[in-house]
Amino acid sequence: MATGKINVSVENIFPLIKKFLYSDHEIFLRELVSNATDATLKLKHLTAIGEAKVEYGNPIIEIKVDKEGKKIHVIDQGLGMTEEEVQKYINEVAFSGAEEFLDKYKDSAKDSGIIGHFGLGFYSAFMVAEKVEIITKSFKDEPAAHWTCDGSPNFTLEASDKKERGTEIILHVAEDSLEFLEEAKIGGLLEKYNKFMPIPIKFGTKTETLPKPEDAKEEDPAPTQEVDNIINNPTPAWTKQPADLKEEDYKGFYRELYPMQFEDPLFNIHLNVDYPFNLTGILYFPKLSQDLNVQKDRIQLYQNQVFVTDNVEGIVPEFLTMLRGVIDSPDIPLNVSRSYLQADGAVKKISSYITRKVADKLNSIFKNNREDLEAKWNDIKIVIEYGMLSEEKFFEKADKFALYPTVDGAFYTFEELQEKLKPAHTDKDNKLVILYASNKEEQHSYIEAAKAKGLEVLLLDSPIISHLMQKLETSKENISFARVDADHLDNLIKKEDAQISKLSDEEKETLKTDIETAINNKSYTIQLEAMDSDASPFMITEPEFLRRMKEMQQTGGGGMFGMGNMPEMYNLVINTNHELVSEILNTKTAKKKERLINQSLDLARLSKGLLKGEELTNFIKRSYEMVK
Amino acid sequence: MATGKINVSVENIFPLIKKFLYSDHEIFLRELVSNATDATLKLKHLTAIGEAKVEYGNPIIEIKVDKEGKKIHVIDQGLGMTEEEVQKYINEVAFSGAEEFLDKYKDSAKDSGIIGHFGLGFYSAFMVAEKVEIITKSFKDEPAAHWTCDGSPNFTLEASDKKERGTEIILHVAEDSLEFLEEAKIGGLLEKYNKFMPIPIKFGTKTETLPKPEDAKEEDPAPTQEVDNIINNPTPAWTKQPADLKEEDYKGFYRELYPMQFEDPLFNIHLNVDYPFNLTGILYFPKLSQDLNVQKDRIQLYQNQVFVTDNVEGIVPEFLTMLRGVIDSPDIPLNVSRSYLQADGAVKKISSYITRKVADKLNSIFKNNREDLEAKWNDIKIVIEYGMLSEEKFFEKADKFALYPTVDGAFYTFEELQEKLKPAHTDKDNKLVILYASNKEEQHSYIEAAKAKGLEVLLLDSPIISHLMQKLETSKENISFARVDADHLDNLIKKEDAQISKLSDEEKETLKTDIETAINNKSYTIQLEAMDSDASPFMITEPEFLRRMKEMQQTGGGGMFGMGNMPEMYNLVINTNHELVSEILNTKTAKKKERLINQSLDLARLSKGLLKGEELTNFIKRSYEMVK
Repeated sequence: MATGKINVSVENIFPLIKKFLYSDHEIFLRELVSNATDATLKLKHLTAIGEAKVEYGNPIIEIKVDKEGKKIHVIDQGLGMTEEEVQKYINEVAFSGAEEFLDKYKDSAKDSGIIGHFGLGFYSAFMVAEKVEIITKSFKDEPAAHWTCDGSPNFTLEASDKKERGTEIILHVAEDSLEFLEEAKIGGLLEKYNKFMPIPIKFGTKTETLPKPEDAKEEDPAPTQEVDNIINNPTPAWTKQPADLKEEDYKGFYRELYPMQFEDPLFNIHLNVDYPFNLTGILYFPKLSQDLNVQKDRIQLYQNQVFVTDNVEGIVPEFLTMLRGVIDSPDIPLNVSRSYLQADGAVKKISSYITRKVADKLNSIFKNNREDLEAKWNDIKIVIEYGMLSEEKFFEKADKFALYPTVDGAFYTFEELQEKLKPAHTDKDNKLVILYASNKEEQHSYIEAAKAKGLEVLLLDSPIISHLMQKLETSKENISFARVDADHLDNLIKKEDAQISKLSDEEKETLKTDIETAINNKSYTIQLEAMDSDASPFMITEPEFLRRMKEMQQTGGGGMFGMGNMPEMYNLVINTNHELVSEILNTKTAKKKERLINQSLDLARLSKGLLKGEELTNFIKRSYEMVK
Repeated sequence: MATGKINVSVENIFPLIKKFLYSDHEIFLRELVSNATDATLKLKHLTAIGEAKVEYGNPIIEIKVDKEGKKIHVIDQGLGMTEEEVQKYINEVAFSGAEEFLDKYKDSAKDSGIIGHFGLGFYSAFMVAEKVEIITKSFKDEPAAHWTCDGSPNFTLEASDKKERGTEIILHVAEDSLEFLEEAKIGGLLEKYNKFMPIPIKFGTKTETLPKPEDAKEEDPAPTQEVDNIINNPTPAWTKQPADLKEEDYKGFYRELYPMQFEDPLFNIHLNVDYPFNLTGILYFPKLSQDLNVQKDRIQLYQNQVFVTDNVEGIVPEFLTMLRGVIDSPDIPLNVSRSYLQADGAVKKISSYITRKVADKLNSIFKNNREDLEAKWNDIKIVIEYGMLSEEKFFEKADKFALYPTVDGAFYTFEELQEKLKPAHTDKDNKLVILYASNKEEQHSYIEAAKAKGLEVLLLDSPIISHLMQKLETSKENISFARVDADHLDNLIKKEDAQISKLSDEEKETLKTDIETAINNKSYTIQLEAMDSDASPFMITEPEFLRRMKEMQQTGGGGMFGMGNMPEMYNLVINTNHELVSEILNTKTAKKKERLINQSLDLARLSKGLLKGEELTNFIKRSYEMVK
């Protein structure tokens, strides 16, 4: 048996790195700026604890693009490296300097925000550069060093006359990466990855208007000056304490995050925890539309103020991916697959912490500013309903503050609703029947009929509401939901005392035959009912169960298999107590009877939105005749 | 000046590989099966050219999962390795064996389909395994070798008693990757990446029913046997010649690709080119719905029968990403960023080749089987319209076969349409006015009115049609599109001879004032027109320009900024030649006049779908009164 050591063929290491990372070439800039930030923060730390006897000052990081020379420069004013350190840190691939530094200064460095997380570090430069130079001068009193490497593993190292402390990285951009010499491209990358990093980053200059001198004339132009163009905000809102932030600051930060978003967010939730994991961030409830898919994945994930991704799947519970904002946590493992992430204990804790904070915030708004919650309910309900459906713990909390609006704009919690509806909506079997409409316009006549009987009608119009109703019906006792057009009202809420029909059984039989003959359409089930004499003479209803199953299928999952494709089923309810119905019964001429029945049917179908196309055109023509 | 060689610290190379690939851990299986396939194809090649004096036989690749022992085995019957070759190929990281092989046997190996593209190869095993074993026996008459490595760079190499030719890789799965010990997971990965690889892949066994023996009794169960479960189709349709495939074969392959898809594809396009680039594949037109977004990205990209990705952005022109199917090309560079890909010359050629093939296929269906194209037009038009909008070259070709259906189900090309419409639709300025409806039901009464005047109405209902109309109006001469409800017909197609109004100018003035007073609604612009006496008395129209701009904004881009949010604008057209209008004018009682006007207005609004909610309920109540 032989043993040995695998020999990594160094000639191939750079193409390998390049290959591995093909989908993400652009992160080289994030890596280099992170290194520059680390070098600066390390110096800050060393000066703070007295290990470096130099002035820390107000260091910045500068990015320069030299399109003609095909070069990108990344320049910091951090601790720099001696020649010996270049040998140690640069010439040994995959040796993470940040880790060693953290080991050495473990306790004091903990809060200094040193990044050093990505590990790819400096070598990612070779993803876009065919040659890389490092010119660096340490804060220690030693000569500057100049390192050059052309991507083969051969390097040169010589002395440099650099005077200022810090490190300059020069990338000689390769032919297949010339896109990175576009100012707009680099500007875009800085905006994406480095917008909130803790050291000011300069990218070019900009012209600033100065105040006019006191003795300037009206027509004199205001003086201007060229100033550094700092592209980042080193102290973004989420790094501050909630107590130090006003409502306006949160809104302002939202605009920083989403400059193209014109609408203000509805609520914000400041996340701030350091045990058992470290997490800060601000989440916002935006105004949501009905389309669930388009607005996902807007939450940005950072680690120590460096942008990592806007895919927070597995970190934030799914129903909250409709929110916006920022989460910053060094404790989320990034080097694992998503499925492993979801099984990770720390990540599970983070996820349930976020869920709890969102529920608590909503509950506190409900308690302290219910009017505000009501005003915004329509724009946020979909998140809350989705959460109630998908996270049992959230359901328990939200059940206390989830609101159910009526068609007249009142808002009830479920408990209040039960109290309010008890007298009129309890049927003879002691079940509470909650009436709702999904569209005030389309179901207007049905809503009016219910209101005329002193009943309340909720307006439940979110796309997943049928799923939530299903859940409420099974988790609460003795309640059921019914849409106002599911049947006629005396059938929806059955009471002990039934209406008495004006018609005899024999007359009813005759009437039914007359109607069946006249309409000659098997798709309507005819249902004779003794209703109030001022209720509609004809009415079309659509049974709740089937309709709801179909809706549940259409909004994904639930319902019963195959239901989504079933045809609509309608009943034609005839009010035997209505004058017009008596008239129909008593009309002797068959032709007139048929006309009366069909005109009434058309009006009932019109009321339910079922009269369309040719039938509508004919109805209108007939009606113009009748107007005359 | 010093020079030196970068020292890759081997201790760190495995964590580095693992880290780099975190989002794609699962590809380890693709890599190992690709290696096994290569080893088998190489042997096939060597036996074919007489370099290997062994029987090639019918080799398979076997995958075994040992959940209890936490192991995955990948076993091939390919050429195997001698101890010396293990030293050379395995102990040198990033040394691609396939490349060297191709160099050596350049000409003869060209068509043998050797994969060796990904380069990550064997070492990706360490993404999921904490220890890896290789047991291998070469086709050469040498003893077998057994290599073991625990992910530190130390390995052991000893003799093995393996008798059969080929290589077995054993992965000892790491704790954070235990998910890969689930049969369903491995089965899913094989299905995703290896479904069409050229060597049969066995994963477990399955039970097969055998024919009953002749002397079996009726009640005897049919005998069964356990057979190898081969998960792949080694010769998928796209690797065959079009001449060898029937319509049924294409449909069958579609079902192989999309087992959950119940509907047959509408057309297929077989791609097959080997100069100036190598590309094979089959594209399918599926039945498309109106929602453009949900159905993108179903085309699968392969390289030598190995699945690479289903993101073909940049390779296939955007409008064709709604198609389905397979593209297999070794010439698409994968190790570059998407933006580089789009600028790549070879990829540009591939993209325009695909566009041309799609246009040619459609053109040949148009010429040889126009009825078929017409029957399927509704399901494919959105792709063609999108293509005409986004690719000028496609527009030029498609302009010959793009179809314009009428509301009565006839189909015209644009040229035919111009010919057909010329007599009736040319206005006094010699402009051809093409009338269309977007919805046969909603615009029924307007369509009927046009047909009554002997005009043709197209049915143009795809979501991007307003953009295409805009393009046609600017690229063709002297034509314009107008929706049937954009104005009354004599205004839409202005002829020399105007209708004569029955009413005097004075009467018209009185009528206008009467109507304005009665309806008391500033949002309707009243327009008195002398129309046919049997046209509608009242009619609501919606000017074309504004409506179309709004629609264009809503379907993304085009139109004018801010138009999307403008309110709808309607005209109320009064037919001064209609009997009812005369009656209104001559009615003396103000109350009756008002009732006539408002009932007529309600009917006109009903016809345009504008009477809703409370107004509709009131209209229906009034109408029930009138029925009696």
